[in-house]
Amino acid sequence: MTPDDDVTPIPASSIGSWDHEADVVIAGYGVAGAAAAVEAARSGADVLVLERTGSWGGAAAMAGGFIYLGGGTALQKACGFTDSVDNMAAFLNVAMGPGADENRIGDYCEGSVAHFDWLIGCGVPFKAEFFAEPGWEPMGDQGLMYSGGENSFPFNTIATPAPRGHVPQMQNKKQGEASAGYMLMKPLVETATAAGARALYDARVQCLVVESDGRVVGVRARQYGTQMTIRARSGVVLATGSFAYNDAMVKRFAPRIAGRPAASIEQHDGQAIRMAQALGADLAHMDATEVAIFIDPQQLVRGILVNGRGQRYVAEDTYPGRVGQLTLYQQDNIAYLIIDGEAQDEAMASWSPKLMLRPATWVADIVADLEREIDLPAGSLQATVAAYNESAARGEDPLLHKKKEWVKPIGSPVGAVDLRESTGGFTLGGLATTLDAEVLHVSDQPIPGLFAAGRSTAGLAAWGYASGVSLGDGSFYGRRAGRSAVKG
Amino acid sequence: MTPDDDVTPIPASSIGSWDHEADVVIAGYGVAGAAAAVEAARSGADVLVLERTGSWGGAAAMAGGFIYLGGGTALQKACGFTDSVDNMAAFLNVAMGPGADENRIGDYCEGSVAHFDWLIGCGVPFKAEFFAEPGWEPMGDQGLMYSGGENSFPFNTIATPAPRGHVPQMQNKKQGEASAGYMLMKPLVETATAAGARALYDARVQCLVVESDGRVVGVRARQYGTQMTIRARSGVVLATGSFAYNDAMVKRFAPRIAGRPAASIEQHDGQAIRMAQALGADLAHMDATEVAIFIDPQQLVRGILVNGRGQRYVAEDTYPGRVGQLTLYQQDNIAYLIIDGEAQDEAMASWSPKLMLRPATWVADIVADLEREIDLPAGSLQATVAAYNESAARGEDPLLHKKKEWVKPIGSPVGAVDLRESTGGFTLGGLATTLDAEVLHVSDQPIPGLFAAGRSTAGLAAWGYASGVSLGDGSFYGRRAGRSAVKG
Repeated sequence: MTPDDDVTPIPASSIGSWDHEADVVIAGYGVAGAAAAVEAARSGADVLVLERTGSWGGAAAMAGGFIYLGGGTALQKACGFTDSVDNMAAFLNVAMGPGADENRIGDYCEGSVAHFDWLIGCGVPFKAEFFAEPGWEPMGDQGLMYSGGENSFPFNTIATPAPRGHVPQMQNKKQGEASAGYMLMKPLVETATAAGARALYDARVQCLVVESDGRVVGVRARQYGTQMTIRARSGVVLATGSFAYNDAMVKRFAPRIAGRPAASIEQHDGQAIRMAQALGADLAHMDATEVAIFIDPQQLVRGILVNGRGQRYVAEDTYPGRVGQLTLYQQDNIAYLIIDGEAQDEAMASWSPKLMLRPATWVADIVADLEREIDLPAGSLQATVAAYNESAARGEDPLLHKKKEWVKPIGSPVGAVDLRESTGGFTLGGLATTLDAEVLHVSDQPIPGLFAAGRSTAGLAAWGYASGVSLGDGSFYGRRAGRSAVKG
Repeated sequence: MTPDDDVTPIPASSIGSWDHEADVVIAGYGVAGAAAAVEAARSGADVLVLERTGSWGGAAAMAGGFIYLGGGTALQKACGFTDSVDNMAAFLNVAMGPGADENRIGDYCEGSVAHFDWLIGCGVPFKAEFFAEPGWEPMGDQGLMYSGGENSFPFNTIATPAPRGHVPQMQNKKQGEASAGYMLMKPLVETATAAGARALYDARVQCLVVESDGRVVGVRARQYGTQMTIRARSGVVLATGSFAYNDAMVKRFAPRIAGRPAASIEQHDGQAIRMAQALGADLAHMDATEVAIFIDPQQLVRGILVNGRGQRYVAEDTYPGRVGQLTLYQQDNIAYLIIDGEAQDEAMASWSPKLMLRPATWVADIVADLEREIDLPAGSLQATVAAYNESAARGEDPLLHKKKEWVKPIGSPVGAVDLRESTGGFTLGGLATTLDAEVLHVSDQPIPGLFAAGRSTAGLAAWGYASGVSLGDGSFYGRRAGRSAVKG
């Protein structure tokens, strides 16, 4: 057991003198911690943020920067899109499930327009330009993009499509100087600092400090090898991120992504979750994960994706994270993209960064040969391609409803990209909280003095996902956590 | 909040005098509790079992009675089957995953032959007769049956098939006088009682009692509306079953089976899980579920099962619980059994209880008409049946490897049984425990004085399942819990 492993809470009575003190103590300076810091500091509280690395940023600063917002934000309007709270909720209730929390989704959608305005007020920049091409992220510094398959089957039959991926404007993206996530985090941290929030870096939280009546009154942390205690006069906010890099937890709760994390957020070791669990905090949706599939959407839309039985299973032009989830969870992580030479050339000639464009693993003149080379069941791929081509000749896809613009018969030569074991993900489950970001005890009552937000909590997603949901609910409920912690 | 909802542990110092006292206190008199009682009482401890209903039995007494055992049990040998520890482990490591705990499976397989002998020693009767037909349970009082798809694809390519579903011999099954589960429970409880174990009925556990150093020293319970405290001089064993009937927990952890429990075990409200969580106990595999599909295997094997895209996805002659899991989790709970008139007549003429035999929802002369009636994508079912019939004429199923004996072209008239939303299940996740049945704290250390077994713990299954695994690991680790609790 390393020193950090023991998350057993310590009694306040055992502490002689505190090393630090603040009204609100926040663990983690990613998006949720920063949003909490802004709100708590703005309301006049003395705020101290503990961050285990040498700087603020967290996973957010490394991310593509999507913030999932809608219901008619100023940016949606400026780009010419109509949306409503109900329409956004209708999409999320289906796309974040099965098992999504309708109450939380309703709450989030209600507050979404105001939350966008709040980000603007903190100085987060957005360029009023829509990016319409298939891709994981915008090519340039465009501010709005579809990021959850809203305009693809089946979601385009459930709610009126509206893009909700709001992306902070990058400076010189092509030169890689600043990610969109960085452009989100920098103004938030500057706003928090201007409002008086302090930060302590290289300070890693270990366990909670509790009064005999169960109230959380501080944390113990370690900085440069030295233990210290930090008193929170009104509340503690946990915002240290997911458990994607805690191998034991992943094995217990989300074994399908074991060994395949999709983001470099090694600090995400589930510490906040375990610290609160040790106090009887409840969990939710621990099996939920985001899943990326490692191929460029410019290729995906131009081919057909088949499983180990040679069958299609998803509209190739939907949110690629949905393709990843369905591949990992429903197709045993086995997929092949069937794409002809002409379509492959088109994809290669697209704007896409070359990193995610994949060469064909096998190429043949006829599908029967390709089927044999891949070692698919005899006749399976031939039947799939024949059926696809038959309706594609009419511009239709009755099986999966890929949009007309991407439906085209598959010709010769025909290739297959081997996408077996080509997924990775991060965890979405965590602490169960109220809409006011109070951490819930298993007895279903809030634990006094303890609040949490971001990916250490279960957020909007119970199973599905859309890019921007984590920065979205992290910042949204981070603010709530900050405000609640001031009240204590 | 009802009185039972507050599971916050109470300090031992707050208890003036205890209402009851024993060396080992066991919560729940199902299979895990009974096995714990036998072992603890046999080792000389004073044992008190608290059971919330009016009698022993639990879910076990209502179950089909399968106990998953192998590695060469006396019953397997008497029925002419060869098995080994390694062979059994090879099967379980795949069938109980993804994410199965190889250590636990290895441990269970190693002890399996001795565990069978122990059951015999307790007086559990088994008839040395193998039941070879498709079915959820044996037709009569046969003692051995395939219960996990061991002899079907893909498992028959991974390990040498051996039946491991051990079924206690029933008396007058046809008259419904005693279930196999009852015939398991009755001798176990009689053995425990003979060894000196006492029981208190209508006593519902509420929370744990702990010393200031964290050791569990008792429980608080309610009987006929009166609270009482029960001291455990050496250890408490939690064995109150799953959380399948706790709607809030199911929604948070296993939302796909929300509203569709498969067994009448309304006492399974997750109380033991929550009581231990309140003390910082860790959880595992909370999303795992058993899933039944409500149709008779005699029909399943004689048809082909297709999803909402008209595609086949599972060998129809595998373990029907596997069919249920794949349908619910990988096919969005949408399935249709395509079966021709002759095959349907054969199924109807089988030995099966008529309850699970389902009439065709739609019937047509040709597949194209059936496809239209079901409202499947145009051409999808026609392609599937054509491909199946083409190889079935040669007695082959290259796509899914259904066994030759069940492969036969589909003729006319052809029917479809609507199996949408026709699944139900129970939960398999729960407390994280050591192989000695100690309950693990989130700090990865055992909680002193606290032990657990049965479906309030995460057992062998991380995702897959086989009939008999719950009574198997429940009785196996129930014994461990009883022995560990004596040591304290």
